[in-house]
Amino acid sequence: MATLSVPDPVPSPIEDAEKLRKAFQGWGTDEKAVIAVLAHRDAAQRKQIALAYEEKYNENLIKRLESELSGDFERAVYRWIFDPVEREAIMANVALKSKNVDYIVIIEIASVNSPDELLAVKRAYQARYKHSLEEDIASHTTGDFRALLFALVSTYRYNGEEINANLAQSEAKILHETITKGVFNHEEIIRILGTRSKAQLLATFNRYKDEYGSSITKALTSETPNDFALALRTAIRSISNPKKYFAKVLRNAIDKSGTDEDALTRVIVTRAEKDLKVIKEIFQKRANVALEHAIGKEISGDYKNFLLALVGN
Amino acid sequence: MATLSVPDPVPSPIEDAEKLRKAFQGWGTDEKAVIAVLAHRDAAQRKQIALAYEEKYNENLIKRLESELSGDFERAVYRWIFDPVEREAIMANVALKSKNVDYIVIIEIASVNSPDELLAVKRAYQARYKHSLEEDIASHTTGDFRALLFALVSTYRYNGEEINANLAQSEAKILHETITKGVFNHEEIIRILGTRSKAQLLATFNRYKDEYGSSITKALTSETPNDFALALRTAIRSISNPKKYFAKVLRNAIDKSGTDEDALTRVIVTRAEKDLKVIKEIFQKRANVALEHAIGKEISGDYKNFLLALVGN
Repeated sequence: MATLSVPDPVPSPIEDAEKLRKAFQGWGTDEKAVIAVLAHRDAAQRKQIALAYEEKYNENLIKRLESELSGDFERAVYRWIFDPVEREAIMANVALKSKNVDYIVIIEIASVNSPDELLAVKRAYQARYKHSLEEDIASHTTGDFRALLFALVSTYRYNGEEINANLAQSEAKILHETITKGVFNHEEIIRILGTRSKAQLLATFNRYKDEYGSSITKALTSETPNDFALALRTAIRSISNPKKYFAKVLRNAIDKSGTDEDALTRVIVTRAEKDLKVIKEIFQKRANVALEHAIGKEISGDYKNFLLALVGN
Repeated sequence: MATLSVPDPVPSPIEDAEKLRKAFQGWGTDEKAVIAVLAHRDAAQRKQIALAYEEKYNENLIKRLESELSGDFERAVYRWIFDPVEREAIMANVALKSKNVDYIVIIEIASVNSPDELLAVKRAYQARYKHSLEEDIASHTTGDFRALLFALVSTYRYNGEEINANLAQSEAKILHETITKGVFNHEEIIRILGTRSKAQLLATFNRYKDEYGSSITKALTSETPNDFALALRTAIRSISNPKKYFAKVLRNAIDKSGTDEDALTRVIVTRAEKDLKVIKEIFQKRANVALEHAIGKEISGDYKNFLLALVGN
């Protein structure tokens, strides 16, 4: 369930465009007015507002926002304004072009989306960048990271519910042997995580826990504490239970000495229209504090006001 | 251009179903009547006939054909009766399940189809087998073959015409160095062939020829005569020029001591509704004999009559 709240009745796109234009004019920007409009419109409505704004003022709304706003607030609005598919195509591209490839973002996009949602992101990526996401991943990464990211992103997974219990058993065994016996055969782990259906993977992870007494993510934490193991854990957790995974990302983003604004923004912006309500509940159970409260203590200013508006405060 | 000829006006599906039923009845099958109907109907018409047959006689037409026909003729009809997408899903599955994985068939399907056609084949594969093609490839193959087949099949290639000339130059250089300097870095070759757009790959192959004086496929033949080099050549040639590639497959299927019926059937059945007319012309130029004539000398009986009907004799 979403946390986004949209007023009823919702103003027309033209009225909203006019409000934004007014907020931009004069000395300084009226950020509160920007938040009051944009943080309370869904993806389709935001698109209509951008079209109405462009038509009426002959100016690109997104470019204008970039010049009006700044810092974390600007980055959050720039993520939010796009519809989910376009946004994730942009996020993937930014992640690939950063100095150290931000593989967590790529793994999330590949793992949390359904096969058809991921396909839509790949199509949007191609339309925008004139390349495939796959070729950009393959040419910006190397070794095991390349193999893992490439498999996760390129496979068009089977999305059915049928599972094969024997296969779950045999592949749980392969995973256990390769993780705990120090062999750590990346090729087999990547093959299994990168190609099996999500239902099949859940069966395999459950079997792993039943058979070996602890979860595969725990085994990865204790046996092989390195970046690649972290990437594998991210894939496993975001495939197994995206909402629980995102609640944990939020906790890490806030728990740290120093906030991880990128992660905080990413989860709130990408989930506000989808399932942030449930993620908030999980967060509160684990952190013993409401997400709004934790955010309110952690960040400030327009950035805080914007995120709190999306969180449904 | 297709070689398939359909009578005008075409009989109704019910009439065709009745003709087939009559051909099955009595002692022995009237194969000529089966050919007269099925070899002269397009994919949509064949589907209608199968539906009409099932409805009228409460019997599956394909199963009945399997029990009525035999040998190479049966196999050819069994391939032909399906529409192209379904057929290629079945071919990929048969190729993966054969004792030695028939990787040539997988490479062809992945390379000759457009990205969206390949996606349609992958969807048909999932609907039929409740698995993804990717996971079946990954679990039936190993090593370099796995990496190559997986990349070719899983990538949703960019299908635009834009190319990057600098990239063509740098990747032609990578290909040249890895092929001719004995390093033969499979990872880089697989990355390039498996992820770049077809337009980009053509530019890279052309650049290779301009820069190094001979084609990349020639280099692969002379430097590294093994199965993996053959797989790479198959990918390169079926991406670069499918029609020329298929003409060559036909020549090899017939030239050999002993006919390669699987390859002969495959090319004729899969291309008869598409571009077999052009493939025939290329074949004739290279082999100095008409395809019909070559087939007529090579095979016999109903199998011959069926293929010749598809070739447009």
